[in-house]
Amino acid sequence: MIKKSNITVCFTPEQFHHYTDKKSTVVVVDVLRATSVISVAFECGVNAIIPVETLDEALKYKKKGFIIAAERDTKPVDGFDFGNSPYHYLNSDVSEKTLVLTTTNGTKAIHTVKNHKVITASFVNIKAVANYLIKENDNVIILCSGWKNIFNLEDTIFAGSLATLLIDSNKFKSNCDSLNVAQQLFRNANGNLFNFLSRSSYIKRNNSVELIKDIHFCLSPTIDSDIIPILKDNKLIKL
Amino acid sequence: MIKKSNITVCFTPEQFHHYTDKKSTVVVVDVLRATSVISVAFECGVNAIIPVETLDEALKYKKKGFIIAAERDTKPVDGFDFGNSPYHYLNSDVSEKTLVLTTTNGTKAIHTVKNHKVITASFVNIKAVANYLIKENDNVIILCSGWKNIFNLEDTIFAGSLATLLIDSNKFKSNCDSLNVAQQLFRNANGNLFNFLSRSSYIKRNNSVELIKDIHFCLSPTIDSDIIPILKDNKLIKL
Repeated sequence: MIKKSNITVCFTPEQFHHYTDKKSTVVVVDVLRATSVISVAFECGVNAIIPVETLDEALKYKKKGFIIAAERDTKPVDGFDFGNSPYHYLNSDVSEKTLVLTTTNGTKAIHTVKNHKVITASFVNIKAVANYLIKENDNVIILCSGWKNIFNLEDTIFAGSLATLLIDSNKFKSNCDSLNVAQQLFRNANGNLFNFLSRSSYIKRNNSVELIKDIHFCLSPTIDSDIIPILKDNKLIKL
Repeated sequence: MIKKSNITVCFTPEQFHHYTDKKSTVVVVDVLRATSVISVAFECGVNAIIPVETLDEALKYKKKGFIIAAERDTKPVDGFDFGNSPYHYLNSDVSEKTLVLTTTNGTKAIHTVKNHKVITASFVNIKAVANYLIKENDNVIILCSGWKNIFNLEDTIFAGSLATLLIDSNKFKSNCDSLNVAQQLFRNANGNLFNFLSRSSYIKRNNSVELIKDIHFCLSPTIDSDIIPILKDNKLIKL
């Protein structure tokens, strides 16, 4: 009989304590845009990414020669090398550099679970992440970063997409209502994620031309990354 | 121009602090079964319901002549007059009595928000609640009781049903992703709530004959109650 591992979906970092068993692999998702940017930055050649919680903490790294990136409330922050757009990395030379990143939700989510086995996922590396999780076949918690600890549609629909790949592999099972919902939303989107998210609070918050371009990229990326970012000693490196 | 009030849906009591503005009307929902039972008990003639958090607290009331009811983990509790089944009330004479009620989720949710204007809702009184909220036209937070502070399908689908009545009245607006999801789930159920919930964690937790009978009642009640239970001085009374 095939061993079936357990998957759950947790909608916000604040609720994670209800889901953790201390042993599951935690997949952190902030599809708009932190975990998409993390994948793109690795594809562009950075050798490590240090997720930090505060702007001050990130600024201290700048003096030590790191490249630093920040986003607050969807916008870039003065004094930082990059914001939270995948295009900032695609249009720059970041190879062999270490990036220090702080964002409203995604890097905070990573900190919440830093004592677990943590990988990051987005549509940029979804296939690689699914194949890895299926191969490992450990229990999985998909942690949506949410928006300031409030449920959001975009991370949930990604969770539904990833969960569907895992459940369909026949090596995972779930008895989790939030996973059930994530899968329903993914089905409801019917392949048109941008249209599905057009009524989301995220797009109502900021619908600038630049952000809409980023959203299109994050939902239908032109890169299919094999890299799985994994947290080791508070630093994301390539698995 | 018509004033449009705001509606949000909060999935669990623990997250309520992100949603409160201290002024909204809070609609507490524990459709399986506490808020359904509350409506049924009022229809059966109780004059007030005191929601309490602990079994010990409820037991103290018994000595003072109150009728007491308890549920933990879907099951009744020894030493109590009633459990959490609507049929316990339909088959008894409770008229003019005061009921003291403690349940796993619903009564805890009521306590979380006791400093707000609180009413309780279920499919038993959904029409009356919707009409009242439309008439008052204040901001509304629909608070799902969840399961031990974890998201559940059954309260969310009720929230979607109530939210749809309010939004369709054209007197409410929302920019809340969880409300959007609740409405999608309600549409996905396509009128067959029992079938929709057949894969829910609730039904996997306990599918005894008695509970399935209760679930059918709570989702398609044979009573259409005009009573709106409202919290005054820590006691639910008829509005």
